[in-house]
Amino acid sequence: MRTPDTQAIRPVDAHEKALATPFLRCLIRLIRAQDTYGMWEDKSDADLLADFIVTKEQRREIPIIGDPDPDVLWRLQIFYTCAALAIEERSGLIASSTIMMSPEGFGRVVLTTGRLVVLSKTLRDVHRFGFDTLGKLAKAGAKLVDDAVAAIESYPDVARA
Amino acid sequence: MRTPDTQAIRPVDAHEKALATPFLRCLIRLIRAQDTYGMWEDKSDADLLADFIVTKEQRREIPIIGDPDPDVLWRLQIFYTCAALAIEERSGLIASSTIMMSPEGFGRVVLTTGRLVVLSKTLRDVHRFGFDTLGKLAKAGAKLVDDAVAAIESYPDVARA
Repeated sequence: MRTPDTQAIRPVDAHEKALATPFLRCLIRLIRAQDTYGMWEDKSDADLLADFIVTKEQRREIPIIGDPDPDVLWRLQIFYTCAALAIEERSGLIASSTIMMSPEGFGRVVLTTGRLVVLSKTLRDVHRFGFDTLGKLAKAGAKLVDDAVAAIESYPDVARA
Repeated sequence: MRTPDTQAIRPVDAHEKALATPFLRCLIRLIRAQDTYGMWEDKSDADLLADFIVTKEQRREIPIIGDPDPDVLWRLQIFYTCAALAIEERSGLIASSTIMMSPEGFGRVVLTTGRLVVLSKTLRDVHRFGFDTLGKLAKAGAKLVDDAVAAIESYPDVARA
């Protein structure tokens, strides 16, 4: 017999829940901050994040030949800027992000606070940057932030050097 | 009365001395490694480094409007790659360099070993990247490497994390 607790969460609820996470709230705030002319005022938060969602099927259809779309580079940049901002909110230390990208969609992202590398990641197939669901986007962001904060706690003096 | 010891070093000797420093030896090796078709075989080491030398007068004449020359970006990249390699030679730890550059010539370079930031520098007026003399180029490179090695010695566990 199924109890209400073990029932699958309805997609709409999962959406709402993801949108309420600190990482996605931060991401939405960053995106809205770039809306200089108020063109996105009528868009919902979910609409603004829609392009971050790339399903497995969609991903397979995106060719990785040629230069990555400028929009996908913008999303990648804002994702890691958001991670840096969220790390700052949690730790009180300024985190700066450096993203290096070849025109072919390979690269590297490094987030640092003080003399500490809190995140270092090789980027590849940037053309296909995206997440299956809003929940997975929120989770991926939260994990980056958690790992970074854990690193800061392990090496507090280096993070402040 | 002037003794030979306090005499100014002749420019030619200064040149030779600079070219014999570990940093410039490393830089020349990196440049020669990119000479796929042997087109620079007849060039002397000083010739290969000639474009790294930009005097104050030349610097003033280079406009900082417009995109930086691809050649200057290449020199910038190879300079920091050389720093990373020299750090590796001295410390035995792999150093990776990440360079982020806006098309307007502003950016940032981060060299890391393990979880340690061994060099972090804001880049500006990249259009004018260069050094007054070969000696100054050698000195600037050696200073970056010394500072990085000192950082590794201060935080040996982070550099190996």
